[in-house]
Amino acid sequence: MIIIMKPGASQEQLNKVMKRIEAEGLNYQINQGSEQVVFGLIGDTRSIQDVAFRSYEGVEKTLRISNTYKLTSREFHPQDTIVDVDGVKIGDGSFVTMAGPCSIEGLEQIMETARMAKAGGAKILRGGAFKPRTSPYAFQGLAEEGLKYIRQAADAYDMKVITEVMDEGHIDMVAEYSDIIQIGARNMQNFKLLSAVGKTGKPIGLKRGISGTIDEWLNAAEYIAVEEKSPVIFIERGIRTYETATRNTFDLSAVPLIKKLSHFPIIVDPSHGTGVWDLVTPMARAGVAAGADGMIVEIHPDPANAWSDGPQSLNEKTYLKMMKEVDLLVEAMKKIKAIENE
Amino acid sequence: MIIIMKPGASQEQLNKVMKRIEAEGLNYQINQGSEQVVFGLIGDTRSIQDVAFRSYEGVEKTLRISNTYKLTSREFHPQDTIVDVDGVKIGDGSFVTMAGPCSIEGLEQIMETARMAKAGGAKILRGGAFKPRTSPYAFQGLAEEGLKYIRQAADAYDMKVITEVMDEGHIDMVAEYSDIIQIGARNMQNFKLLSAVGKTGKPIGLKRGISGTIDEWLNAAEYIAVEEKSPVIFIERGIRTYETATRNTFDLSAVPLIKKLSHFPIIVDPSHGTGVWDLVTPMARAGVAAGADGMIVEIHPDPANAWSDGPQSLNEKTYLKMMKEVDLLVEAMKKIKAIENE
Amino acid sequence: MIIIMKPGASQEQLNKVMKRIEAEGLNYQINQGSEQVVFGLIGDTRSIQDVAFRSYEGVEKTLRISNTYKLTSREFHPQDTIVDVDGVKIGDGSFVTMAGPCSIEGLEQIMETARMAKAGGAKILRGGAFKPRTSPYAFQGLAEEGLKYIRQAADAYDMKVITEVMDEGHIDMVAEYSDIIQIGARNMQNFKLLSAVGKTGKPIGLKRGISGTIDEWLNAAEYIAVEEKSPVIFIERGIRTYETATRNTFDLSAVPLIKKLSHFPIIVDPSHGTGVWDLVTPMARAGVAAGADGMIVEIHPDPANAWSDGPQSLNEKTYLKMMKEVDLLVEAMKKIKAIENE
Amino acid sequence: MIIIMKPGASQEQLNKVMKRIEAEGLNYQINQGSEQVVFGLIGDTRSIQDVAFRSYEGVEKTLRISNTYKLTSREFHPQDTIVDVDGVKIGDGSFVTMAGPCSIEGLEQIMETARMAKAGGAKILRGGAFKPRTSPYAFQGLAEEGLKYIRQAADAYDMKVITEVMDEGHIDMVAEYSDIIQIGARNMQNFKLLSAVGKTGKPIGLKRGISGTIDEWLNAAEYIAVEEKSPVIFIERGIRTYETATRNTFDLSAVPLIKKLSHFPIIVDPSHGTGVWDLVTPMARAGVAAGADGMIVEIHPDPANAWSDGPQSLNEKTYLKMMKEVDLLVEAMKKIKAIENE
Repeated sequence: MIIIMKPGASQEQLNKVMKRIEAEGLNYQINQGSEQVVFGLIGDTRSIQDVAFRSYEGVEKTLRISNTYKLTSREFHPQDTIVDVDGVKIGDGSFVTMAGPCSIEGLEQIMETARMAKAGGAKILRGGAFKPRTSPYAFQGLAEEGLKYIRQAADAYDMKVITEVMDEGHIDMVAEYSDIIQIGARNMQNFKLLSAVGKTGKPIGLKRGISGTIDEWLNAAEYIAVEEKSPVIFIERGIRTYETATRNTFDLSAVPLIKKLSHFPIIVDPSHGTGVWDLVTPMARAGVAAGADGMIVEIHPDPANAWSDGPQSLNEKTYLKMMKEVDLLVEAMKKIKAIENE
Repeated sequence: MIIIMKPGASQEQLNKVMKRIEAEGLNYQINQGSEQVVFGLIGDTRSIQDVAFRSYEGVEKTLRISNTYKLTSREFHPQDTIVDVDGVKIGDGSFVTMAGPCSIEGLEQIMETARMAKAGGAKILRGGAFKPRTSPYAFQGLAEEGLKYIRQAADAYDMKVITEVMDEGHIDMVAEYSDIIQIGARNMQNFKLLSAVGKTGKPIGLKRGISGTIDEWLNAAEYIAVEEKSPVIFIERGIRTYETATRNTFDLSAVPLIKKLSHFPIIVDPSHGTGVWDLVTPMARAGVAAGADGMIVEIHPDPANAWSDGPQSLNEKTYLKMMKEVDLLVEAMKKIKAIENE
Repeated sequence: MIIIMKPGASQEQLNKVMKRIEAEGLNYQINQGSEQVVFGLIGDTRSIQDVAFRSYEGVEKTLRISNTYKLTSREFHPQDTIVDVDGVKIGDGSFVTMAGPCSIEGLEQIMETARMAKAGGAKILRGGAFKPRTSPYAFQGLAEEGLKYIRQAADAYDMKVITEVMDEGHIDMVAEYSDIIQIGARNMQNFKLLSAVGKTGKPIGLKRGISGTIDEWLNAAEYIAVEEKSPVIFIERGIRTYETATRNTFDLSAVPLIKKLSHFPIIVDPSHGTGVWDLVTPMARAGVAAGADGMIVEIHPDPANAWSDGPQSLNEKTYLKMMKEVDLLVEAMKKIKAIENE
Repeated sequence: MIIIMKPGASQEQLNKVMKRIEAEGLNYQINQGSEQVVFGLIGDTRSIQDVAFRSYEGVEKTLRISNTYKLTSREFHPQDTIVDVDGVKIGDGSFVTMAGPCSIEGLEQIMETARMAKAGGAKILRGGAFKPRTSPYAFQGLAEEGLKYIRQAADAYDMKVITEVMDEGHIDMVAEYSDIIQIGARNMQNFKLLSAVGKTGKPIGLKRGISGTIDEWLNAAEYIAVEEKSPVIFIERGIRTYETATRNTFDLSAVPLIKKLSHFPIIVDPSHGTGVWDLVTPMARAGVAAGADGMIVEIHPDPANAWSDGPQSLNEKTYLKMMKEVDLLVEAMKKIKAIENE
C-alpha cells in the first residue's frame, strides 16, 4: 500500500501516520518528493484498510497495490481450476452450454425444454424455482416443486442442473436437487449467503452484480473461496449503464480480464446480457471467441407464453441454429488456443 | 399498458396479441396509425407483465402507463405519511438528524458518540452492528454485543436507534434493540428480507441501491408496504456512476421526485453520498434545501481511528458546525414551505 | 407518436393538446382508458418534437414510435450498404483490418508501422495527425506534416488511409490525404462538423461518443446521410461506465444492434474498447464473431516509446499473432453467415 | 508520479524504466517492497504522460499524484477569482441568476422573457441562437438574428447576456453581442474551441460534459486559462447515468468539490440538471445551499409553445415563486458563510 501525503503536510501529521503504520505491524519506506511525501508500506497489507489512513489529517490519497482476493487470484494459483460438475468439466478448454427457461413453470414445460436443450448439445439444464422480482405482484417461482421438476427433467435427459438460491434457509434444499448452485446478480454482495454456499462443496455459479466492479466480483468469489470447499464459476451477465437499447450492457472484456486475474472459469449469459432474443446468437458467438469456458442461455418451447423473460428466450428453431454456429466457432477456437499456447 | 406492433405486422400476429389480451381479462382499443397498429389496454394491468407481450412476434415495444407500486404511490394516498418513531416524528415538516458512527466499536466509543450527536441536536443514534464488507478479510461488526451498546447509549441520552439488519435470521434480534430497522443499499432488492421486515411494525429505513432506479426503489418499498404494518423512510445515499472524484454520485433530485411520487418521507445520507468528510456539510445543507425530511450522517470521536468509513466521518467540531448551518437552513425552509403551500 | 394524459386531466387540457396536434397538421385517435386518455398521432411525426407535448399541462408522458433517422435506417434501405474505399470493400461480408499507431510521430515510425500492418494483412493504415488531449500540456499531433507521412507510407505499401478530422477548417486538407475521414468520439455530436464532412463524398468513419446512446449515434449518422454524398462506417470504441478495470466498456452488442437498425457497416476498435494491450486480441476475436465488418486497431513498432496510447498498442509480434487468430475466425464466420442466410 | 512494477519484474525491466525516467529529466526514489518495486518520481511531471510508463513491460500501474491543471487549480491561486461581467460580480459571495429561454424564438418572445427574468431578480439573460440538436430535422436556432434580439432585450432591461458558441467561426460574432460566452456540454472537450474562446477576454461559462469527470472538466478549463485572458465560470448541468427518471443526474457535489480544487466560480443549471420543471425549484434551492455562486435557469412566457426544452422551463408564476424561495435561502447562506469563515 502507498500513502500519499498532501503538499505541506506537517511533521506532526507525518508522525501520526508513521505511528499507525507501525501499530499495524508493518514497515515503510519514505519517498521525499519535491512537493510531497509518499510512504511505501512493507509487509502483508491484505487485512489493513487503506481507507483507515485516508482519515488522517495530511493524507491526500492511498493506493492499494496488492489485491485483497488471495485464494481467487491467479497469482496465488497459476494453473486454471477445472470445475468438475459430476463428470461435466468446465474450464478444461471445452465450451459447456447450460440452457433452459428463466422460470420452471411445470413438469411438462421443463421436460420439453430439457429435450430441446439436449438436442442442441447443452449438458446442463438451467431453470429458476425462486424468482426475485422487482414488483411484489409478479410471479415468484414454484419453489421446491420446481426443483423436483428440473431434477426429474435433467435426469431424464442425462443432464446436470444449475439453479439459483436466494436465501440461506433454502441452501440445503437447493443443494439436494442441483449440481451447481447459482448466486444471482442481486446477491453478488450478499456476503452471508456467499459464505454459506461456500460450505456446501457444490460448484457455485457466481453472477456479476448489476453494478459490480471486476474487483468487487473477485472479492465476492473470495468469500466462497475462503471456505475451501466449493469452486467458483464466474458468470458475466451484463452491467447497468446509461444505454437502454439493450437490457444490460454485456461486458465481454470481463472474460479475458477474469482469466488474467483468476484461476476460476468464466462463462457468459448472452440472454441477460442483451435482453433481446435476436441479439443472443451473435453475442453467444462473441462469448466463445472472447475465450469463455461456456455459456448459460434462456430457451423456452413457447417464448410468447413464458411466465418471465420471454423476450430474451430462444425457441427451438433459433436455439438449434445458434448451437450450430457456436459449434463452428468452438472448432476454430481449438486451433486458436493452440496458437495462444505456442 | 400500450402495445405497439411493428410496421407490417400480419393480421395473424395481431390476432394472437388480441387473444392474449382477452385471456388476461382485459379489453383494448385499437389505434390504426399510418405505419403501425397500437393497442391500448383497458383494465387493471398491475399484475400483468408488459414483457410477456414483447415475446410475441410482430410486437415492437410495450409501454406501461400506470405504475406497479400502488400502496407506496401518492396517487393512492395523497397525504404525506408521518412516521412516528416512538415520539420522534419524521415527515411532519421538521428536519430530523440521525448521527453516529459507521460501526459500533465498543461501549465507550458509542457512548461518546451519542453525547456528541445529542449535543448537535440529533434525535436518533445510528451505528452498525453487522457490516457488509467487500473483502472477507475486513472487520464484520460486533453483532448482538454492538446492539446492546447502541441501545444503552441511546437510552442514556434520550435518543432513538436506527441500525441495519442484513439477514432474515437477525430481524427479531435487531427489532428488540432498534427503533428503526435499516435496509442497506446492497439489500434494496433482497425481496425476502423486505417482506420479513415489513411484518415487524417498526419503521423501515430503506436505502436506495447503489444502482437502484427510482422506479425499482418505489417497488422495493411496495414489498414492505404490502405487509401493511411498517411505514417506510426512503434514504438517498448516492448512486454508482462513472465519476470517481466522489465515492458515489449523490442524487439529490431523488428528494423532490420521491416526494412527488410517494407519500412516505425521504431523508438523505451525505456521508455515503459523497464519501469525503469536507463535502458532507455542504451536501447536508443542500439536502435540507431540496426538501428532505431529515438526514443520516456519520460522526466519530476520532475519525482517524474509526474501524470503518473514517474518511467520510465528521469529528465533534465539524459536526457541531454543520448542525449550526443546518439549523439556519431549516429556519429558512419553514418560510419557504409556507410559500410552497400558498 | 403517443401522448399519454395524466389520470384526471381536464377536458380543457385535452382540448389544448388536440388543438396543437391539429396545428401540426396531424390526425389522432383517442384511447379512453379506465384511468387516463391516450392519443395516438397519425401522420409523419418525424419533424415534430415529442418534448413539445410534454410541456402541456395534463400530459404525463409521450412516446415516439417511429425513429427520426430515416436515411440511416434499415427500414428505409433494407439492403446492406457496401462502402468502397478506393477498391477496398467494407460491408460485403469480408472483415477489413485498419491498423496503425495512435499518433503519427514521424516518417520513419509510420513507414515501419505500415510495413508491420501490411505484413499482418491490414488493408488500411490508421494514424492521427491531430490529437485531442485532455490536458493542454500534452502532445497535440504533427498536423499536415503527419498527413503527408501517412499518405506516403500507405502508398508505399499499397494501403488506404483513415485519419481523424477535428475541425471544420481542416476538412479539405484531411480529405486530400485520407481515403476515409474519421470523426472521433468527442465529436460524435459536433453537428456542424458532421454536416461538413458529409459533403466531401469520402466515406466517414463515425466513432460512437463516449456516452453516446445507440439512438444518438444513428441520429449523428443521419447528419452525414442527409447530405447524400458520403457513406458512414460506424466504429464501436467502448463507452464510459462505472467500471475502471478497463479504459472503456466495450459494448459489442452494438454490432448486431446497429446491423439490425441500419444498412451501413460497423467495425470495432478493441484498442480503445479495452485500453489494455493484452485484452485487445480476445476482444478483436469477439468482434469478428459478433459479426463486425472489420476492426481498427492500434499497433506500434515500440509501444513503450509511443507518444500516446502505448499501453493499448500491440507490437509486431502480438499483432501478427492476433491476425492469425482473427483469420481463423473469419474463416469460421463464412460458414456461419451461410447458416444465417439459409 | 508513482510507478508500480509487477511482482517478479526483472532487473532488465527495472533498468528500462529507470533509463526512461532519467531521459525525461527526472529523478526517482526506489521503494523495495516485499512483493514489488515502486518508483517515486521527483521533479515536475506535469508534461509527462503516466500512460507512457504503462507501456513498459513489467509495469503494473502508474499513479499521478499532482494534478495537470496548474492555472485552474486552487493550489496555484488560493484566493477566489471574482468574475466581473461588465459590473455584475460572480464569485464574490452573492448569488447571481441567469434566466431566459432555451432558444431565442423572436424579438417579442425574448423581450417578454427579459421582462419576466428581470422582475424575478435575474441580472443576466440567457438564450440560445445556435442549437445543437440530436436530429438533423429539428430546429437549429436563429443565428445572428437571434443574437441581435437577445442583446436588444437585455439592454432594454439593463441585463447582461450569456449565450452559447458552438463553432470557432462564430466566436467574433457571439463576442460582439454577448457578455459571457457559453461552451455547451457537447463541446467541453472541443479543445480548439476552448483555446479560441480563451483568447476573447470575455468570461467563459464552461458547462460540464454529459459524461465529463471533474478532472476532465478542470483540464478543459485549463485550455482556457493558459490563454491568460478569459476567466472561467463552471456550470454544473447534470451527468448521464443509468437513471432515466430525470433527464440527467444533477451532481451537486460538484459545487463544493470544484470550490475546493479551483479558484474559479461555479454556478448550477437545475433546468438541464433535472429536465422536469417541477423539480427545478427544489434543486435551485439545493444549489444555493451547496454553495453555488449562481444559477442558470430556463424560463419561457409560454412553455407549452416553446420551440425547445418546454418541459423543463418555468413560466412567470413558477419562476417568480422560485426566486422568492431562492432569496430566502441566499439570506440564510450569508449567515452560514460567516460561520464557515470563522
